[in-house]
Amino acid sequence: MRVDLNCDLGESFGAYRIGCDEEMIAVATSVNIACGLHAGDPDVMARTVDMALRAGTAIGAHPGFPDLAGFGRREMQMAPAQVTNLIIYQVGALQAFVHGAGGRLNHVKPHGALYNMAAKKDELAEAIAIGIKKIDPNLILYGLSGSRLIKAGKKMGLRVAQEVFADRSYKADGTLTSRSHPLAVIHDPEVAALRVMQMVSSQTVQAIDSSILSLEADTVCLHGDNPSSLDMAQRLRRCLEEEGIEIRALG
Amino acid sequence: MRVDLNCDLGESFGAYRIGCDEEMIAVATSVNIACGLHAGDPDVMARTVDMALRAGTAIGAHPGFPDLAGFGRREMQMAPAQVTNLIIYQVGALQAFVHGAGGRLNHVKPHGALYNMAAKKDELAEAIAIGIKKIDPNLILYGLSGSRLIKAGKKMGLRVAQEVFADRSYKADGTLTSRSHPLAVIHDPEVAALRVMQMVSSQTVQAIDSSILSLEADTVCLHGDNPSSLDMAQRLRRCLEEEGIEIRALG
Amino acid sequence: MRVDLNCDLGESFGAYRIGCDEEMIAVATSVNIACGLHAGDPDVMARTVDMALRAGTAIGAHPGFPDLAGFGRREMQMAPAQVTNLIIYQVGALQAFVHGAGGRLNHVKPHGALYNMAAKKDELAEAIAIGIKKIDPNLILYGLSGSRLIKAGKKMGLRVAQEVFADRSYKADGTLTSRSHPLAVIHDPEVAALRVMQMVSSQTVQAIDSSILSLEADTVCLHGDNPSSLDMAQRLRRCLEEEGIEIRALG
Amino acid sequence: MRVDLNCDLGESFGAYRIGCDEEMIAVATSVNIACGLHAGDPDVMARTVDMALRAGTAIGAHPGFPDLAGFGRREMQMAPAQVTNLIIYQVGALQAFVHGAGGRLNHVKPHGALYNMAAKKDELAEAIAIGIKKIDPNLILYGLSGSRLIKAGKKMGLRVAQEVFADRSYKADGTLTSRSHPLAVIHDPEVAALRVMQMVSSQTVQAIDSSILSLEADTVCLHGDNPSSLDMAQRLRRCLEEEGIEIRALG
Repeated sequence: MRVDLNCDLGESFGAYRIGCDEEMIAVATSVNIACGLHAGDPDVMARTVDMALRAGTAIGAHPGFPDLAGFGRREMQMAPAQVTNLIIYQVGALQAFVHGAGGRLNHVKPHGALYNMAAKKDELAEAIAIGIKKIDPNLILYGLSGSRLIKAGKKMGLRVAQEVFADRSYKADGTLTSRSHPLAVIHDPEVAALRVMQMVSSQTVQAIDSSILSLEADTVCLHGDNPSSLDMAQRLRRCLEEEGIEIRALG
Repeated sequence: MRVDLNCDLGESFGAYRIGCDEEMIAVATSVNIACGLHAGDPDVMARTVDMALRAGTAIGAHPGFPDLAGFGRREMQMAPAQVTNLIIYQVGALQAFVHGAGGRLNHVKPHGALYNMAAKKDELAEAIAIGIKKIDPNLILYGLSGSRLIKAGKKMGLRVAQEVFADRSYKADGTLTSRSHPLAVIHDPEVAALRVMQMVSSQTVQAIDSSILSLEADTVCLHGDNPSSLDMAQRLRRCLEEEGIEIRALG
Repeated sequence: MRVDLNCDLGESFGAYRIGCDEEMIAVATSVNIACGLHAGDPDVMARTVDMALRAGTAIGAHPGFPDLAGFGRREMQMAPAQVTNLIIYQVGALQAFVHGAGGRLNHVKPHGALYNMAAKKDELAEAIAIGIKKIDPNLILYGLSGSRLIKAGKKMGLRVAQEVFADRSYKADGTLTSRSHPLAVIHDPEVAALRVMQMVSSQTVQAIDSSILSLEADTVCLHGDNPSSLDMAQRLRRCLEEEGIEIRALG
Repeated sequence: MRVDLNCDLGESFGAYRIGCDEEMIAVATSVNIACGLHAGDPDVMARTVDMALRAGTAIGAHPGFPDLAGFGRREMQMAPAQVTNLIIYQVGALQAFVHGAGGRLNHVKPHGALYNMAAKKDELAEAIAIGIKKIDPNLILYGLSGSRLIKAGKKMGLRVAQEVFADRSYKADGTLTSRSHPLAVIHDPEVAALRVMQMVSSQTVQAIDSSILSLEADTVCLHGDNPSSLDMAQRLRRCLEEEGIEIRALG
């Protein structure tokens, strides 16, 4: 039994600092680096790629909508061909830093509103998969487990990584419980670790209505925005290791 | 005797249109495509790459300072390492579109203030050459003939293309006469063609003080911003062909 | 019988030029000047305000979503309080240019997606009206005739200008026929002028299903993006004058 | 004897947070609020204006170069007329928030590279003063004590506030010692307070070469970027109060 732990990195911009990058890179086995349009800039990208290469984590691109003011969290209206171009632009730029530093780009995980919209809309999901395939058909597409994005990636012949959330509850249909729900977030790292173990070992998880939901779990999303999420991530990793789960990147 | 004719392309942005791209691509043998920071956007880049592949011109990246409001024409203060990152970001993004469309990136020509500053400052010129070499050591670096940028490219082991201006007069030191000088611009395409012929055949040109200046001429810069520059470019090409100069891209 | 003819102006940005501003200002009686976030920049704003003051047209602010790449035509997700701030920022900036040049700001017309969304959503419409009122309760709010934006303006105690389109057909519910409809656009300026006359004289217009629709017409939207729309605007104005309609700004 | 303590505020942008605004507003008597081009955004501006009104501090605009990536710290090439427009745009936008919230704009302090360049260049300094005067001739211009910016403000008939730095050493010519100098920064708040006292009481300060320098001190620049500068600011204020200096805004 094994699982990958992934984390968003390199979201600082100019004089603005965000995220506990140094600490999180010690917890994650794969990192998703922002590509300059919703967060990050060329200097942050270069620095973060170097940091990831030194740490030995798998390196992914983390493209988002071109909306720095909204941090890529707002839905934008773009035609599918525009989304393909958006992916090529950002992943191409990050890939150049990775290659220039002697590394290899491992995966692509869309960010924020782009990730969420692609989980539900086939056309958008396919536009993303097309962009990734044009860059390099060996790239792994990270998407919400069981989502349209995963489906689109498979259809395009890409390898996919089904992403799960250790600290969030699921509805019976496989989507995440809304953050406004009192039981949306799981705060106990041991409970979170047990849920991940169940996902990895049996490809199931208990939904919020107590029903048992099937879902594949290739990679777990970690957050390190603040000291408390960092602590949760560190404790989750320890719990998983103690349970004998192998923590390792895909690819 | 041969020479390349290069032209900037893909400088439109969103709803804003600039340049006679369709007409110029029929005149040029190599094109420099803007990379989204001083001009251009992902959709314009995709469209322009496709246009250039159909036309069979050599494709280059045209990176500039991140200054859309100033069209990359204003000097910016950036450390050499930042300039290297700026080059990697932009050239990497354009390269991804070229590779995605089945093409090959041929060259890099810095834009505007970046080009002009790099012609004079070794440190900046080397920062650009380092960025290009990290992307692909086979890329050709276009720079002002005889400038520090050409010198830096050679020092880094890159192939270079010495760029000359057919419609501008030169000072005895090899730099261009300021645009405010009454004889700065040559308006007669036949005179311009004769000057290019002399540059190509004898690696010399007559400076504005009548002295004879040595300069190498691998590629001639064309402009197609307006109907009159487009007309000049078209007539220059015809004159060169009539004189038996082979018009062909490098690389 | 009188009507105002309004036109968007000052949409150029940096080196990018859009619109026939010089020609349109001779046709329009009120102008809506872009405020730097979806189009325009401080220099264009200063220049356009000066041009409007010399021409003697009424001057309005034309705030839009902060989306230069999309020219303000894409819907954005913003909370009502954010929209109020967006209005205050942009209208405040333009007002400063108008006051600095010795003029008076007359009105505000939201742009593009902001205009269209505000026509249908009360919450957004009210957020805009609140922003305008905070700047100056004497400003006139331009909105689609009969829309939620007009309703919100009245509710907030603002003066409103009901805007109609001379060259577009209407559906029975008062909204514009989609541009994809074969009869969406009216190309004959005399027909357009007769429709405007009917709107002004009887506050009605014939909808595309031949039913008679009530609508108030205080101001007619003109476009001058290209030579053909400019020609249409010029001919429409002449037709209206020949019919004895007084062409005059509100306020 | 009295002096104003001023502080930059509202430099956050979207999801990016910078500065200890809540703590600093309790120490400062006047605040300079970023205007959205080098830092800040419409929501941050609205929030910061409200905070300042509740705290009762004097409110100033803090316009900078349009360079979010460089935080307004990089020199930019702009013609004087462009700088005037840049000032009108930003100060106008902030003024609208202040007026909309029922307050009054008190002053303008240019930011970063704009402040530093205006301290030395008459043309740029006058362009700023012209912009401020067009907005409101009663606004106070904050500038480096004894600089060209102060001179330009006086020449234009503006009230000025001569700004001094409590924690920085001065050269004999009245400029600040470069940050690379070992004695550039004064770390002891009591020493800093004594220096401010001397500046306020005798309009002199000891330069780094031990000579006595004349300089006027209307306002002291505080920083609250990090816990240590915040602590320094709080202790400086206490020391000044203990020495009997009245801490009060100008205007």
